[in-house]
Amino acid sequence: MSDTFTLVLLRHGESEWNAKNLFTGWVDVPLSEKGRQEAVRGGELLSEAGVLPDVCHTSVLRRAIMTANLALDACERHWVPVKRSWRLNERHYGALQGKDKKQTLEQFGEEQFMLWRRSYDVPPPPIDPGDEYAQTGDPRYDDIDGTMPSAECLKDVVERMLPYWRDAVVPDLRAGEVTLLAAHGNSLRALVKHLDGIDDDTIAGLNIPTGIPLVYELEDVDGELRPVERGGRYLDPDAAADAIEAVANQGR
Amino acid sequence: MSDTFTLVLLRHGESEWNAKNLFTGWVDVPLSEKGRQEAVRGGELLSEAGVLPDVCHTSVLRRAIMTANLALDACERHWVPVKRSWRLNERHYGALQGKDKKQTLEQFGEEQFMLWRRSYDVPPPPIDPGDEYAQTGDPRYDDIDGTMPSAECLKDVVERMLPYWRDAVVPDLRAGEVTLLAAHGNSLRALVKHLDGIDDDTIAGLNIPTGIPLVYELEDVDGELRPVERGGRYLDPDAAADAIEAVANQGR
Repeated sequence: MSDTFTLVLLRHGESEWNAKNLFTGWVDVPLSEKGRQEAVRGGELLSEAGVLPDVCHTSVLRRAIMTANLALDACERHWVPVKRSWRLNERHYGALQGKDKKQTLEQFGEEQFMLWRRSYDVPPPPIDPGDEYAQTGDPRYDDIDGTMPSAECLKDVVERMLPYWRDAVVPDLRAGEVTLLAAHGNSLRALVKHLDGIDDDTIAGLNIPTGIPLVYELEDVDGELRPVERGGRYLDPDAAADAIEAVANQGR
Repeated sequence: MSDTFTLVLLRHGESEWNAKNLFTGWVDVPLSEKGRQEAVRGGELLSEAGVLPDVCHTSVLRRAIMTANLALDACERHWVPVKRSWRLNERHYGALQGKDKKQTLEQFGEEQFMLWRRSYDVPPPPIDPGDEYAQTGDPRYDDIDGTMPSAECLKDVVERMLPYWRDAVVPDLRAGEVTLLAAHGNSLRALVKHLDGIDDDTIAGLNIPTGIPLVYELEDVDGELRPVERGGRYLDPDAAADAIEAVANQGR
C-alpha cells in the first residue's frame, strides 16, 4: 500500500434539465446526449492518465449513475463494485425544483436569486410534499433517518455528506483503493470545501467543471485524510479552466 | 420480512459475438443493439410485474453489467447497490474462445462439438496463457485464489459459482432484499441446477432464454433456500418458450 491515497471526483455532465435551464436538485432526470459524451470523455481521461478506479461511489440520481457507468466502461473498469448513497445527491433545491432559472431570476431579482444559488447557509423555500417535483414516498429514500429534506443550503449538504465520506469513502481509500466518486456540483463542492479547508464565504466562488476528473492525492495527517496538494489536479487543466468560467455564467 | 425470498435471474441478451456466432466465454465483448433492447425489455417486464430489485449481483463481464444497468434503469431501480464477482462469469470456453461455432462444428464433428457444449464434466481444450483471447494479467481476476481457469466444464462452473451464492447472494435474500442476478447462460444453468436439484444428465437439456426475468420464490428448508415452485416463473412465459427453442438450435 502506498503512503498516499487516490480520490477521483467526477461531476456529471449536462442533463436534460441543464439543457433546458431548469433547477433540478433531487429530480431524477437523465443525461443529455452531450452529457453522455462528457462521461465517456471523463473515462478516457482516466484511462490516458492511468488513474484506474478500484471502487466507485455515486449518488442515487441517474445522472451521476449514468456518468459513472459510462466513464467506468470507457476506462475498462466497468467491473468494479459500486456503492451509492443519497448523501452524495445534489443539493435539494426546494420549491425551485422544476422552475426555469431565468424566470426565477426575473421573478425574484438578482440579489435573492444569487442568495439561493450561492449563499452558504440560506436554503431556498421548502418544497410542498405534494409538489410534482417532490420525492415524497420514493423508496430510494427509505433509509433516511428522520425527515426528508424539503430544501437545502450548501451547509446542509456538507452536514449530510460528511458522515458518508467518513463512514464509507475513507475506509475504501485507506484500504488502498483508487476511489471514484461520481456526483454533483454541490455535493462535490461540499467535499472540496472539507478537503481543502475552504471557508464559508470563499466556497461561494468555487465551481467544479463537469466531466473532467479531479484527482486528489491524500495523506494521513493526525488521523484525517488531507490533500498533498490543495485543490487537487484536473486531468485536463485547460478544459477545466474554460469550463469553470462557463459554469460561473450559468443561469445568466 | 416475508416468509419467502425473491430471486430474479436475468440472462444477458445478444452480444456482438453472439451475433457473429463466436465462442465468447470470458472474452469481454459488449452487447449488440439487439442485446441492449432485450435488457431494457427485461427491465420493463420487472416493472410491469412489480418485481423491483433492492440489490443486484453481476458477473465482471460487460454484457451482464450492461444488461443490469439497462434493466435496472428501465424499472427505476438504477439506484440500488451492485455487487460483482468473477464467480458469476460465463463458463470459460478454453481454446475455443474467439473461434467460430460453425467452423468448430465442421472441424471437430458433431459428437465432439456437443460434448464440449453440453456434457457436464468434459471441459474444452485449455487456452494458452499467451492466446489473444486469454485474460492473462487482467486485474479484475486478481482476487482469484489459486490459478485462473484455462477452460471449464459446467461442473467447474457449479463449483466456483456456489461459494458466491452462499456467501454473497443468500445473505441478501435472507435480509429480505429482492435480489437480481444478471449473468450468463452457464452460470445461471449452474444455479438453477442447484436450486431445482437437477441431475448431471438432465441439465444438458436445460436452456435459459435471454432477457426474460426468471423469478424464484425461495423458502428456508432445513437451513437451505429452496424454490417454492421448481423451475420458477418467467415474466413472459410465451416469449420464454419460443426463446428456449431458439437457443436449443444455436450453433446449428
